Amino acid sequence: MAKRYSTRFRIRHGHTDPAGIVFYPRYYELISATIEDFFREALDMPFGDLHVRQRLGVPTVHIETTFLAPSYCDEELEFSLVVEKLGRTSATFRIDASREGEKRLSSRHVLANVALDDMRPTPFGRNVRGRLEEYLVGEEQDA
Amino acid sequence: MAKRYSTRFRIRHGHTDPAGIVFYPRYYELISATIEDFFREALDMPFGDLHVRQRLGVPTVHIETTFLAPSYCDEELEFSLVVEKLGRTSATFRIDASREGEKRLSSRHVLANVALDDMRPTPFGRNVRGRLEEYLVGEEQDA
Amino acid sequence: MAKRYSTRFRIRHGHTDPAGIVFYPRYYELISATIEDFFREALDMPFGDLHVRQRLGVPTVHIETTFLAPSYCDEELEFSLVVEKLGRTSATFRIDASREGEKRLSSRHVLANVALDDMRPTPFGRNVRGRLEEYLVGEEQDA
Amino acid sequence: MAKRYSTRFRIRHGHTDPAGIVFYPRYYELISATIEDFFREALDMPFGDLHVRQRLGVPTVHIETTFLAPSYCDEELEFSLVVEKLGRTSATFRIDASREGEKRLSSRHVLANVALDDMRPTPFGRNVRGRLEEYLVGEEQDA
Repeated sequence: MAKRYSTRFRIRHGHTDPAGIVFYPRYYELISATIEDFFREALDMPFGDLHVRQRLGVPTVHIETTFLAPSYCDEELEFSLVVEKLGRTSATFRIDASREGEKRLSSRHVLANVALDDMRPTPFGRNVRGRLEEYLVGEEQDA
Repeated sequence: MAKRYSTRFRIRHGHTDPAGIVFYPRYYELISATIEDFFREALDMPFGDLHVRQRLGVPTVHIETTFLAPSYCDEELEFSLVVEKLGRTSATFRIDASREGEKRLSSRHVLANVALDDMRPTPFGRNVRGRLEEYLVGEEQDA
Repeated sequence: MAKRYSTRFRIRHGHTDPAGIVFYPRYYELISATIEDFFREALDMPFGDLHVRQRLGVPTVHIETTFLAPSYCDEELEFSLVVEKLGRTSATFRIDASREGEKRLSSRHVLANVALDDMRPTPFGRNVRGRLEEYLVGEEQDA
Repeated sequence: MAKRYSTRFRIRHGHTDPAGIVFYPRYYELISATIEDFFREALDMPFGDLHVRQRLGVPTVHIETTFLAPSYCDEELEFSLVVEKLGRTSATFRIDASREGEKRLSSRHVLANVALDDMRPTPFGRNVRGRLEEYLVGEEQDA
């Protein structure tokens, strides 16, 4: 049974637009923060270390998002993450955001694992891979 | 033959991350600005008027993006837009960003036309619809 | 003895620039979130209510900030807030951000209390004023 | 007679808040873009080159801003820049933003010239210094 990672963020005044609802590029900042929290807490790989010390990056190569309901200032949303696919050098995460059971968005993000110096795909390290597998809900695949 | 709208934006220091490349939520700010420029210049419907005077909004309900190559500070990118589908109350835009012929991303955005007061779908006005049709590359559909 | 409000935020990948340090406009997003947390927790006045229900706003009319040391991705910073001046229709907040005792910035923000419908200054309500006084480190003044 | 540099930016939907006016951290993104345009066009020193090739940075160490009037979506603002002080390793810029003669904000920014590898102040190069002097409205000073 796969694990499900979750973290929480509050919607801020600066996330919202003249309609009083979240301007969607701000959601991606929160999804990015969710992935960072997952890397730091679940994979023991803080983004600062990853980029600066290990010279690795995980650029997003594909995104699919469905926005289901608007979010408003002050609301606290739960962002959950599971791994849908795990390839040799890439992974697909599904991130859902909801509030009190109402889903606000569902997003699929394909990340490539790359060496920053040449931006080329590089296999996940063994430890990271093992931990990603714990969150894998689909079947393992090559990529 | 459908029209193709295009506008240009420069990549800014604040768009880029420690890897020196654009942090992807910033791309969505530029895509949003592209759609605003399109509404203002091609549809004669500036976003400020739309929201404040007409009490209409065009929330994004679905996004699919493929990021093909990184972008760097100072680069000027061309953002082009065509209409892929046109429904009664929604439209699908395809926005591509490229630099000197190298495509950096391709993104599909489904926007709903809503009345801000109840956030319910409302048909596009006749003038707007007529102008959207000029940029329609696919076949007209219901939605 | 005046109270001191404090809250904590983590520095995110998207806050940082190619030098690996916080791009300063992102600090103002965190300062804004600090002021929101203060309004919600200390003044019992969530920003969403304030704007939408009460039709009040607190636009920032003056800022002075000294940036003392850079901040890096993954760091958790403490943001503290005191009231330096309290006028009839405006207040001056001092917000300091620090990490493990090292101060990163010190910022003074003058906010006006305005009615959103005409953007004119309006006196703070009695309850809000009473609570602001608890955080007042300087002497009360007219404004 | 000192030169005055100016550039123009449009206020975007994503810059504005539920009151329909610019959320002030977004102004700092535009001020930062103004300074970048000034470096690229007036000093012939694009920020990308500066950071990546020359390993120099110009972190902002002090800011003072007065916000005079709100700005709204779709407005095009003129941002102008002059040099108020020029030290050996730092410079003070004054940036004003206005629309059709109405000033919206006036901001003073002290930037340090630093080597990115140790974040220590380093003197401006001779060419850059000469060009900065053309925009100097005050008297030259040591720093």
